Amino acid sequence: MSCLSEADQDRILAAVDEAFETQIAFLSDLVRCVSLRGQEADVQSRVEAALLERGYDVSRQTIDPTLIGRHPAFSPATVSYENSWNVIAVQNPAITEGRSLILNAHVDIVPTGDPKRWQDPPFEATRDDDWLYGRGSGDMKAGLSAAIFALDAIRAAGLELTAPVQIHSVVEEEITGNGAAMAVASGLTADVVLIPEPTDEKLVRANSGVIKFAITLHGTPAHPREVSGGVSAIEAAMRLIEHLRQLEARWNEEGAIQPFFHNVENPAALTIGTINGGEWIASVPSCCRFEGRIGFYPGDDPHERVRELEAFVARIAVDDPLIQRCPAPIVEWVGVVHAGYTLAPGSDAEGILAEAHAAAHAPNGPALNSYVMACYLDAAVYAVHAGIPSLVYGPIAENIHAIDERVSLASLRRVTKTIALFAATWCGVRSVADASHLPASHHD
Amino acid sequence: MSCLSEADQDRILAAVDEAFETQIAFLSDLVRCVSLRGQEADVQSRVEAALLERGYDVSRQTIDPTLIGRHPAFSPATVSYENSWNVIAVQNPAITEGRSLILNAHVDIVPTGDPKRWQDPPFEATRDDDWLYGRGSGDMKAGLSAAIFALDAIRAAGLELTAPVQIHSVVEEEITGNGAAMAVASGLTADVVLIPEPTDEKLVRANSGVIKFAITLHGTPAHPREVSGGVSAIEAAMRLIEHLRQLEARWNEEGAIQPFFHNVENPAALTIGTINGGEWIASVPSCCRFEGRIGFYPGDDPHERVRELEAFVARIAVDDPLIQRCPAPIVEWVGVVHAGYTLAPGSDAEGILAEAHAAAHAPNGPALNSYVMACYLDAAVYAVHAGIPSLVYGPIAENIHAIDERVSLASLRRVTKTIALFAATWCGVRSVADASHLPASHHD
Repeated sequence: MSCLSEADQDRILAAVDEAFETQIAFLSDLVRCVSLRGQEADVQSRVEAALLERGYDVSRQTIDPTLIGRHPAFSPATVSYENSWNVIAVQNPAITEGRSLILNAHVDIVPTGDPKRWQDPPFEATRDDDWLYGRGSGDMKAGLSAAIFALDAIRAAGLELTAPVQIHSVVEEEITGNGAAMAVASGLTADVVLIPEPTDEKLVRANSGVIKFAITLHGTPAHPREVSGGVSAIEAAMRLIEHLRQLEARWNEEGAIQPFFHNVENPAALTIGTINGGEWIASVPSCCRFEGRIGFYPGDDPHERVRELEAFVARIAVDDPLIQRCPAPIVEWVGVVHAGYTLAPGSDAEGILAEAHAAAHAPNGPALNSYVMACYLDAAVYAVHAGIPSLVYGPIAENIHAIDERVSLASLRRVTKTIALFAATWCGVRSVADASHLPASHHD
Repeated sequence: MSCLSEADQDRILAAVDEAFETQIAFLSDLVRCVSLRGQEADVQSRVEAALLERGYDVSRQTIDPTLIGRHPAFSPATVSYENSWNVIAVQNPAITEGRSLILNAHVDIVPTGDPKRWQDPPFEATRDDDWLYGRGSGDMKAGLSAAIFALDAIRAAGLELTAPVQIHSVVEEEITGNGAAMAVASGLTADVVLIPEPTDEKLVRANSGVIKFAITLHGTPAHPREVSGGVSAIEAAMRLIEHLRQLEARWNEEGAIQPFFHNVENPAALTIGTINGGEWIASVPSCCRFEGRIGFYPGDDPHERVRELEAFVARIAVDDPLIQRCPAPIVEWVGVVHAGYTLAPGSDAEGILAEAHAAAHAPNGPALNSYVMACYLDAAVYAVHAGIPSLVYGPIAENIHAIDERVSLASLRRVTKTIALFAATWCGVRSVADASHLPASHHD
């Protein structure tokens, strides 16, 4: 570690260990908040209180809907943001010498599916040996706790950062990315952003651009006794989904010549997330709507991909013998419409992260590996629209967006240490005599 | 017409004509009642009042849920019947000489689909030249008005029936048939039942048995970045629906050797009426449920068809490479599970109906034609479980279960006349001096 003494490093690592049970308790509190879309206010209030207690300059940042359509970082939105706001915490040093840092994490979660399919209720934050269970435990409340407690550890080690640091606790990552977009559009910036998404302690080298659509088909309703007089909107939707698999295949094929993506299985990954059609068991259904997402490659213009998908649907609407009997399918954009990004190999930030990772895994840890994540990440907003190098690196988690989501606590401990060492090295540290502004629980 | 004098016949036909605008007003009132499933109380109250006003012995008949599963006329039900009750009107003559008659009609309607797709709002009962528009106008509030006003016309002609007549204004035809089942299970019977469903002034020779199912698939939810680790419940449902088309084809093929069904296009008619799956746009969906119906032939045991469909689904669940990765599909029976029926050609009832039909169309009307209706009809309940010959014969209607449902008023007038002449001939009539018990509106 270039600029961090061995003694400082050891004190930081020890401080992470010392506060780790407190960190798990904090994480468990976050998991117990049901921060589904539109319901993030409770968890954000807790995050805000925790950051105020630590002495940060804390503000609530509401998403300004008038920026949507005007600022390119924003994606279309279909909901009110009245109760959805970012928490922005800033810590400016007395003396600025190093490089500034943003630690970003999102607090919004996706639905649980049938809670009965979970081994424990999804919002109880059940701890079982090395695992903490719960919706959002891995994706990504663990990462948020790592960001907060990593900075705590630096102070508990008697050090303070010598560059500005910000914590962006954002909303909307799971649907539009408009939480991160608001942070960027408001002018917040830094020399690097680190986002502890659940990456199995690997670094994200690139991610895919993603567009999220809703497509509505209208059929011709009819009585079952005269099926041939009707056109089933559900059947038309099923056919259109089948056709869209061709588009997925074509976009997947493009991956073969993309840097970093040639070994990714199914990089475009068309997924149909919801479908709702019909209103009566014994009528030929008049309407069917499905929602989904599809991915593409860094450097691709997402709006060009939007046009490509719309043109594909329009062509199918003419060519398919069933769908041509329906009014034109209605394509709506109801979530993220965003480019992917690539983290150029060989950056100073990556080198420092690799050293921190090694130190946190000492004595015999694995080297820092990188991989491609074929999904949307808020990192893309910082990388594409603010030109900030974006490191996505976080703990081992399983079953995100699935049943029995869980995060490894041993991994979370290592990741917290890695982030602490990364921040200390990237921003620089100096000794402080007095650490009494830390909350009491950190002196237990 | 065997036992009806030409003078009586003319008086009955004239009485239908005279009250026809009143009948249209009554029908329009019925159409304005939004009698969707569970919301039939309003329309039934109006029917009850109209029948009380006419001097019938009227009672409300609640469906007894404890009979479901015990009495074979009943189908599975999934809703409360608290606000859904039949109206039963009985008129017993002073002297019984002829044969008794039940006139049955259902008041429940199916949803409208998007009302904006209707040329006029679906519950305004808009009249445009020969057509009365509205959900339920054809299926089958027009038929109910025909039954009531046909009997009115007989009395207005100075006649009274010489056999018992009942009007069964029932609920639940569109989903379970349990309204008619309750009427039959309560012991109500007659020598014939006539049901003025919208049949384009033709007689139903046979109908199909029908079973209505809901099938739930559970998948393995996953994040789009690891699609291969998940199993999409929506995709599994789409595949199962495709497989079920094979079952439909097989059951359709059986029609070739069925009396009356060999010329019916798609007699089994698998229709998928609703589908609902997934809960998040960017997750591999964990659950998908669809509802539908499929038909078969008179004489088939519906419970055997239930077992056949369940066995088919169970085999697919083993054989299909995607569905075999899901828990076993859950098949539920959520609507009618009922046999079809055949009206044996050559009955006296059919002969009398044909003569009444000809007289109502005189001088140059078409002969009474018969056809197969490949859907569930309440007539099957009377035919199968009470052994009552069932005549299904009613007006010309278009777009039932569809957009812009409408009934032909000229046809409704003819059908009302046909029913009146049929009832007078079937039950027999005698002159009465005093018709003052009819409501005032019939003397306008």
